[in-house]
Amino acid sequence: MKDFQYIDIANRIESMINNDTYPLGEKLPSLRVLSGHFGVSVGTSLKAYGLLIDKGLLSSREKSGYVPLRKSTAHTAQPVATTAAPAIREINVSRIISKMPVDAGPYPPGFLSFFNASLETHMIPFNAVRRSLQKASRDLTGAHLQYESTLGNQLLREQIARLSFYWNGSLSANEILVTNGTLEALSLCLRAVTQPGDTVVVESPCYYGILQCLEQLQLKVIELPCDPQEGIDTGQLEDIIDTYDIAACLFISNFNNPNGVLLSDEKKKWIAEMARKRQLPVIEDDVYGELYFGPARPTTIKTYDKHGWVMLCASFSKTVASGYRIGWSAPGRFLEKVAQLKATTNVATATVLQLSLADLLTSGTYQRHLRKLRPLLHKQVLLTSQHIEQYFPSGIKISQPEGGIVLWVELPKQVDALKLQKLALEQDINIAPGPLFSSTGGYRNYIRISCNKQWNRQVEQAIRKLGKLVGTF
Amino acid sequence: MKDFQYIDIANRIESMINNDTYPLGEKLPSLRVLSGHFGVSVGTSLKAYGLLIDKGLLSSREKSGYVPLRKSTAHTAQPVATTAAPAIREINVSRIISKMPVDAGPYPPGFLSFFNASLETHMIPFNAVRRSLQKASRDLTGAHLQYESTLGNQLLREQIARLSFYWNGSLSANEILVTNGTLEALSLCLRAVTQPGDTVVVESPCYYGILQCLEQLQLKVIELPCDPQEGIDTGQLEDIIDTYDIAACLFISNFNNPNGVLLSDEKKKWIAEMARKRQLPVIEDDVYGELYFGPARPTTIKTYDKHGWVMLCASFSKTVASGYRIGWSAPGRFLEKVAQLKATTNVATATVLQLSLADLLTSGTYQRHLRKLRPLLHKQVLLTSQHIEQYFPSGIKISQPEGGIVLWVELPKQVDALKLQKLALEQDINIAPGPLFSSTGGYRNYIRISCNKQWNRQVEQAIRKLGKLVGTF
Repeated sequence: MKDFQYIDIANRIESMINNDTYPLGEKLPSLRVLSGHFGVSVGTSLKAYGLLIDKGLLSSREKSGYVPLRKSTAHTAQPVATTAAPAIREINVSRIISKMPVDAGPYPPGFLSFFNASLETHMIPFNAVRRSLQKASRDLTGAHLQYESTLGNQLLREQIARLSFYWNGSLSANEILVTNGTLEALSLCLRAVTQPGDTVVVESPCYYGILQCLEQLQLKVIELPCDPQEGIDTGQLEDIIDTYDIAACLFISNFNNPNGVLLSDEKKKWIAEMARKRQLPVIEDDVYGELYFGPARPTTIKTYDKHGWVMLCASFSKTVASGYRIGWSAPGRFLEKVAQLKATTNVATATVLQLSLADLLTSGTYQRHLRKLRPLLHKQVLLTSQHIEQYFPSGIKISQPEGGIVLWVELPKQVDALKLQKLALEQDINIAPGPLFSSTGGYRNYIRISCNKQWNRQVEQAIRKLGKLVGTF
Repeated sequence: MKDFQYIDIANRIESMINNDTYPLGEKLPSLRVLSGHFGVSVGTSLKAYGLLIDKGLLSSREKSGYVPLRKSTAHTAQPVATTAAPAIREINVSRIISKMPVDAGPYPPGFLSFFNASLETHMIPFNAVRRSLQKASRDLTGAHLQYESTLGNQLLREQIARLSFYWNGSLSANEILVTNGTLEALSLCLRAVTQPGDTVVVESPCYYGILQCLEQLQLKVIELPCDPQEGIDTGQLEDIIDTYDIAACLFISNFNNPNGVLLSDEKKKWIAEMARKRQLPVIEDDVYGELYFGPARPTTIKTYDKHGWVMLCASFSKTVASGYRIGWSAPGRFLEKVAQLKATTNVATATVLQLSLADLLTSGTYQRHLRKLRPLLHKQVLLTSQHIEQYFPSGIKISQPEGGIVLWVELPKQVDALKLQKLALEQDINIAPGPLFSSTGGYRNYIRISCNKQWNRQVEQAIRKLGKLVGTF
């Protein structure tokens, strides 16, 4: 753990800058003072300040020492949710996507895609994954090449259960079913509790992958506006449940994709209570929960679920490797039904990759990797945000996520994000246009920017080009 | 290829025994004569006769030389299909299965399960799989840990396309989509061409996994009786399509599970033609096609499909390793829709295992393995059949599959297969009872026996115990 002490110290200083204990423009304690205060070496203090410089929060000049430049919290306004009144809607995101140039890669040299919210290679614990895979292939037995249990590999399920400790949960291995990624977990949970034609409540804006999944399952949605600070309005949610026949809710509780909203513990608790009282299944997508920038892992709605109405879904796609396609669900009282659907859809998930992941978790490599990944992601999110502010026309709004990989940007009213995407593609840049994230036809002037790039001059130039294009509308 | 010459010679002699060129009880050519005739070493001839002895087809006694004991073709009668008139039925197989003791393993020592039609460890090319996996993990790049293309890994798709040569097909890589096993391929194809409530024509008896998949997709079935020699009656199929509103057909064309029927080329051609004329999607499950006992790979319905109405599905679960969960589909004109469903269900299949399989195919290991696997399976099927004949009461009927892993046994009318299963379980033996294979309530006195066990005294004893139990009814 000592290796990561500098990250903890940087986090402490960052919050002290954010709450004005260290005002912007005024000198921070010297390396020597800092080291004395925390009882660490000068080298560790140097690394802590270095991390904050990397994030664009400090300047360091000869003689003047370390000076806070900006806060990592709010300075531009944050984008607001759609004002479209919640109503039952058919989803047509597939139509929008089918008209869109596919963003599949591999890209030509020089092409920069801010489209996908997945980890790029420099954020993947590549050598550790390879070692664990080699270990799994060395330790392979004949049994590993037979059908795995539908619920998944026991070693991996035990490790996943232990992770619940960090979000104040207490899952046991036998509550968990391993899936081919989060999307399969969501899809199985949806199939378990809905029928085609049913209505599901989601947040607005809503990740287009979820909308597409709902669309293919022939479900309808009610999109609940999601305030950038507060998240969904529980009163409004209650009204909707009173008014309409709702089959399920599906929420990204931590660092919602695209707008980054983190639901408060109070709201999570309220939702879990509501689910029980109304006997209404709540599907929770916690795929970004491990990618927090603050000091502690956020809780989940499942944390407060005592009666099995919350169906938690997550994966290792945003933390280890999307190409592993390993996710999981803890679907509470619906476990048997979800397992039946899994068994009749693809029997079970492949064993070998589960073994490799179980090894990464058991050895502690997973947690060590995350300790490095989180500040790296935070840095990329902050630098991207700072440069959008610098290069985009004034009046735009940018989300301030406390975790995750993406920024949600509200552009001036006259900007058409779908047109902006076309113009950007001509300059070898891609972005995710707002209309993907709703079935209301809203978010016409919004874009989602993925911060999965190693920050460099080329990325900065691409943000500048985007800013110029926004200015042409 | 020279290593496998003895298998070809054994196949030749086997057909000559079957067609009475070498009558039962009369001496076969000596090793020296055989070697001279085929231009091979005496050692190779010895191995050829040895294989036929292993299959229980020859006896070898001092002085009397090698003598044909029995034919590998028909001597007991074969089980007939249900006589229930074809009609639209709701499926309730899940209910039967839910009341059944789960057959998931691992089994206590001494337990013998004839339930699952999957390869046991001794039939898996374990060392080759491990080597290919180690190679894949050595050659791993960062890109392999990103999302794979929804269609699947390009190397593997090229190799799968090349396999079509053996069944007189001409698939190209871009017609193929990689899935998590055959069941996922079938499930995606079904979702692509049906709506809940639609009716699908299947063979009777029908693999319970397919019935469960249809059930979970809320589809209904018409079960078409499948003659043990002739397979489905195309006239009857035409009548059904004229009479009912059919959304799709789903057939196991080669070595149908459970009754082993191999559709003739004429019928395959007729079905492909019918699909085109009627614009009716035909989903073809060819998961057993590679496991032929005769001299040549059988064709598929897809072989005769010129207009993309046939959706071919298969996997490597019955040839390499079920635990890899790698299957594929060539869904013809429905490729785009199937890919959309795959993308919104679990995005893509994991890359690493696809690389490992591509390596097994490219290196020729896959074909070499199959050349050894086929006679091994044939031996197990023949020995199991011979011992069922020996130990079961007279009057039973046994299928004579020309490929695959299972036997379908019709027991005397008074035997209740579900009760038989319970009695067998008390003696640490499991079997698949007939009622699983239909939604008609038929096949009450049928069982499916998997021949995936390495033949030994313990297996023989289990067959004997089963025979005794059958006699108690």
